[in-house]
Amino acid sequence: MQSTIRSFDLAHLAHVELLTPRPDESLQFFRDVMGMTESGRRADSIYLRGWDDYEHHTLKLTAAKIAGLGHFAFRATSPDALRHRVAVIERAGYGKGWTDGDLGHGPAYAFTTSDGHHMEIYYETEWYEPPPALRPSLKNQAMRFPARGVNVRRLDHLNLLASDVTALRVFFEDVLGLRVTEKIVLDSGAEAGVWVTSNNKTYDVAFTADHYGAVGRFHHLTYALDSREEVLRAADIFLENGVHIETGPHKHAIQQTFFLYVYEPGGNRVEVDHAGARLMLAPDWQPVVWTEAERAKGQAWGLKTIETFHTHGTPPIDQYTGPRKK
Amino acid sequence: MQSTIRSFDLAHLAHVELLTPRPDESLQFFRDVMGMTESGRRADSIYLRGWDDYEHHTLKLTAAKIAGLGHFAFRATSPDALRHRVAVIERAGYGKGWTDGDLGHGPAYAFTTSDGHHMEIYYETEWYEPPPALRPSLKNQAMRFPARGVNVRRLDHLNLLASDVTALRVFFEDVLGLRVTEKIVLDSGAEAGVWVTSNNKTYDVAFTADHYGAVGRFHHLTYALDSREEVLRAADIFLENGVHIETGPHKHAIQQTFFLYVYEPGGNRVEVDHAGARLMLAPDWQPVVWTEAERAKGQAWGLKTIETFHTHGTPPIDQYTGPRKK
Amino acid sequence: MQSTIRSFDLAHLAHVELLTPRPDESLQFFRDVMGMTESGRRADSIYLRGWDDYEHHTLKLTAAKIAGLGHFAFRATSPDALRHRVAVIERAGYGKGWTDGDLGHGPAYAFTTSDGHHMEIYYETEWYEPPPALRPSLKNQAMRFPARGVNVRRLDHLNLLASDVTALRVFFEDVLGLRVTEKIVLDSGAEAGVWVTSNNKTYDVAFTADHYGAVGRFHHLTYALDSREEVLRAADIFLENGVHIETGPHKHAIQQTFFLYVYEPGGNRVEVDHAGARLMLAPDWQPVVWTEAERAKGQAWGLKTIETFHTHGTPPIDQYTGPRKK
Amino acid sequence: MQSTIRSFDLAHLAHVELLTPRPDESLQFFRDVMGMTESGRRADSIYLRGWDDYEHHTLKLTAAKIAGLGHFAFRATSPDALRHRVAVIERAGYGKGWTDGDLGHGPAYAFTTSDGHHMEIYYETEWYEPPPALRPSLKNQAMRFPARGVNVRRLDHLNLLASDVTALRVFFEDVLGLRVTEKIVLDSGAEAGVWVTSNNKTYDVAFTADHYGAVGRFHHLTYALDSREEVLRAADIFLENGVHIETGPHKHAIQQTFFLYVYEPGGNRVEVDHAGARLMLAPDWQPVVWTEAERAKGQAWGLKTIETFHTHGTPPIDQYTGPRKK
Repeated sequence: MQSTIRSFDLAHLAHVELLTPRPDESLQFFRDVMGMTESGRRADSIYLRGWDDYEHHTLKLTAAKIAGLGHFAFRATSPDALRHRVAVIERAGYGKGWTDGDLGHGPAYAFTTSDGHHMEIYYETEWYEPPPALRPSLKNQAMRFPARGVNVRRLDHLNLLASDVTALRVFFEDVLGLRVTEKIVLDSGAEAGVWVTSNNKTYDVAFTADHYGAVGRFHHLTYALDSREEVLRAADIFLENGVHIETGPHKHAIQQTFFLYVYEPGGNRVEVDHAGARLMLAPDWQPVVWTEAERAKGQAWGLKTIETFHTHGTPPIDQYTGPRKK
Repeated sequence: MQSTIRSFDLAHLAHVELLTPRPDESLQFFRDVMGMTESGRRADSIYLRGWDDYEHHTLKLTAAKIAGLGHFAFRATSPDALRHRVAVIERAGYGKGWTDGDLGHGPAYAFTTSDGHHMEIYYETEWYEPPPALRPSLKNQAMRFPARGVNVRRLDHLNLLASDVTALRVFFEDVLGLRVTEKIVLDSGAEAGVWVTSNNKTYDVAFTADHYGAVGRFHHLTYALDSREEVLRAADIFLENGVHIETGPHKHAIQQTFFLYVYEPGGNRVEVDHAGARLMLAPDWQPVVWTEAERAKGQAWGLKTIETFHTHGTPPIDQYTGPRKK
Repeated sequence: MQSTIRSFDLAHLAHVELLTPRPDESLQFFRDVMGMTESGRRADSIYLRGWDDYEHHTLKLTAAKIAGLGHFAFRATSPDALRHRVAVIERAGYGKGWTDGDLGHGPAYAFTTSDGHHMEIYYETEWYEPPPALRPSLKNQAMRFPARGVNVRRLDHLNLLASDVTALRVFFEDVLGLRVTEKIVLDSGAEAGVWVTSNNKTYDVAFTADHYGAVGRFHHLTYALDSREEVLRAADIFLENGVHIETGPHKHAIQQTFFLYVYEPGGNRVEVDHAGARLMLAPDWQPVVWTEAERAKGQAWGLKTIETFHTHGTPPIDQYTGPRKK
Repeated sequence: MQSTIRSFDLAHLAHVELLTPRPDESLQFFRDVMGMTESGRRADSIYLRGWDDYEHHTLKLTAAKIAGLGHFAFRATSPDALRHRVAVIERAGYGKGWTDGDLGHGPAYAFTTSDGHHMEIYYETEWYEPPPALRPSLKNQAMRFPARGVNVRRLDHLNLLASDVTALRVFFEDVLGLRVTEKIVLDSGAEAGVWVTSNNKTYDVAFTADHYGAVGRFHHLTYALDSREEVLRAADIFLENGVHIETGPHKHAIQQTFFLYVYEPGGNRVEVDHAGARLMLAPDWQPVVWTEAERAKGQAWGLKTIETFHTHGTPPIDQYTGPRKK
């Protein structure tokens, strides 16, 4: 009962900051190929959004020497929920303190995950107001449909790599109050992958074991499309634009999302997906546990998972300078 | 803040009881044409489910002299949330009392809406366990995909008719704690239609003004499909089976769902829809208000709303014997 | 036997010349909204193409005082077939004589249909060679996928209005050697609409009775998309761009194509469609005849045909100065 | 010029006879999983059809000790075209002679390909007349849409294995008058795969080099679906029915069809596909030639071709008793 109540503090994954060593090309990718729209610039960062993201931005693209995750943020469900959740994080010892906020949102509380990923939570936000040329015909839509490139609709989720999957699972459950929807447990009993959510999407965040034991690395972020047909067309568009397609389109066995993974020019993995009408509506959903034998069957329709999917993350391992827990 | 907290008591629309004067034909429609699966029988009722509904059933089909809504039910998010919500309903004077439950779920609290529709809320439920022949290949799915007829996935929402839309809106907000996502307000200031939700779906329940001023009538219930392509194919299947297609497939301006409306043999209106990747993730979503002039433009791509959509409900008006507030 | 052989002289509808009183806006529509690519200019004309049209162009957009059809052309299957077909046309008395050709194709023989529409046939053509920036990733594709607007793939068919449908049907069968695949025959015995083809598409040309008895008017031209899902998305794009959507998306009963009709800024009707996997492979296909009663049922899923679909053509009737056979 | 005329003798691939050592299970697969309809039985054979195949059947399933191809047949465009083509085949020395025909079609001329596959051509056919329960709602459709399993629409093409690809290419061009649309030519100059057509489909027949040098083996037959979305759903249905999915869904680089390959219970490979709006309309289409380097890139979006796709054929090589030209 407590855990159920607690899970309502965070509303949804709000935005992701990606670091890119090739900022001009990354911008071109997200704007012209993914079909996103720039909504602001500040210092070394450009802010971007899908056509139905309701906030100012969902992607902050920051120039950096090495690719990887800058930080990611969740929006709280209310000012009280934010205060409550900050107190829990502080008690747990992960807090870093309040920031003044950023373009598009108000004060944010910064902290790290158990694996060292930078996170923030906040409540005050700026609902996106499109300029006249970008006003939609239907008023219940955040922005005009761009009809350019892949036309991603909204941020869906992100996927982290972790040196300690179990510790990160406990962190997301106990410190952030999210719920586990599915996970992979090896024959050894070790957790190899976990999917967690704060709402009716079946996951806001996923995390899998870092092949190299590195801490705090990034696997991918995902934008949602309105149909599987659009994911297929996205593959054509990536092909025409010389974007590296890593794997897909195909259907995951876990979570059953229809996926397509590519690398943006900075080296970070990006996914476009569609989940059909699947939602996690049950308040007492019990985690679906996948065994090693089940995972060995590959993806839903039998596609073997490509090797780089297990090894590539950002920062790339040859540029990673942190500790290795392995 | 209070209202945000309050909204978490109810998890989702759980099931709908439809009354049908032609039970055999209605069963044939829901099972063979809609592709639903029977999960139980008791007295004059047959219980049915979509292939990814997680509970025992989402449709209770009950033989009756006149078509219409028997009752509909929401599942609470926890036992405490159920108790809290029951207390609110009782204080508001709408309560009827506890029942022992039904096939597939435990004790339920029965009450009426402000417009007289029968409702229940409960927490204890029976997660569906498919018999061996209906076990899915992927364990994160409630049941095997039937590959029969329209193959509806899960219950999505229902739509009521109301003699007093504003009173019903206040009821859903204040007594049940749901949130308004969109509504129609006439030039006179009168509310003509309201969409409310208890979760990230943009609506669990919608209600529009009863053309005849009747109380407690039913407009339609809706099952979700995984793609707009499946809605189009459903139209072919309804055509081949002699099912009356009232309107669609087309896209609603309000809520932007892709819709298709038919009448089941008992006379009740049934919809299949697909919402793409649209979700209401914002905790502070402000209702989108549609004016008369905006509604006059028709549906999203200009289709004029068919006359019967404004007048047909169940019980049919010529069999309705209740009061008329008009 | 003779008629079968005869039908192989013409290969396919090759291009359509549209007259527009608003050439700049029409160009913007076809290039930015429809996603077509300009491949040439000459005098008052701009030449455009879909991304998988194999010839130089399939649309010639010509500035003119009044909207309407300039001419349309078929490509012959061989030089011999061209000569043979020209001889038949000359004998039938419809010939106007040879032209030197146009941008993108060689000598063409000009003539009129029995209803006065301007037509040409030719064999020598210029296969489109995309400039480097428009080269496709897959070499079996005419041009790079543009990922802009509606992204029409290839010209599909055109639809004429005729003062005398039967005479035009006889013309297409006997003079041009096309085959009738479907037609509408009124209770009076009069033919009200006919669909003809020179290949395995179920129609290259359709023609219906002119409501006003005018001669030689134009109803619409159609570009094919790869899926019904793309037709639905096209509707969103037309809506966002302020394009008048006349009717659709819906499925025709006749020919079962999934359709969407709009007006381009010059006033000409334009369609985007998808036919699924339907082809006319049978060499002895017998025309499907639709009665008045069957037509009264509306389109495939019951949509009533909108009034303007029966009356609007170009030139618009109030600018039409020719004879009326009615 | 001659070759163009010559190509019009054959209209389309008409039917395929598959041999199966597990006839009951194969029947269950084609009827219940693929959604085909039985239209007749004779001796050890059962005749089946897709819902929009216009002839009596497109699949003849014959009980046999070993899986493989019984024969396949093309329909001629006219009685004269049939006579002409038979004369060419006889002169070329491949003829076996006339048969009385079979269920659903009249006299057929039997012969072998240069690689020993059994073929027939005929003209007289029986247009399918559905029994009352299977009559479609739209009269321009061969049969009622079944809404069962994968719901294949019509036969699309078949793929042979050949001990000598070049000889078979010459046979299809010179003896049967088909046109080559695409082919694979190795660095050695050897042809490794060829796609040929007799109509506007981009292929009716494909053939690739037999890995073992065996003669006359079979690779797969293909039924067309109306959308890529239906191919994706077919994958779900195959998964639920325990059907072995070999590879896909994905998009071929060659021909750009969206494919999904499975093995039917008898061991023969079966494909469902969708080609979008792609057609070969040009009468002077020049073969697209793919190099070894281009093939090494995998399928359109980078999927590596699975090993069994190059080796598995029927009869299975361990049951094959013929010569090996390698």
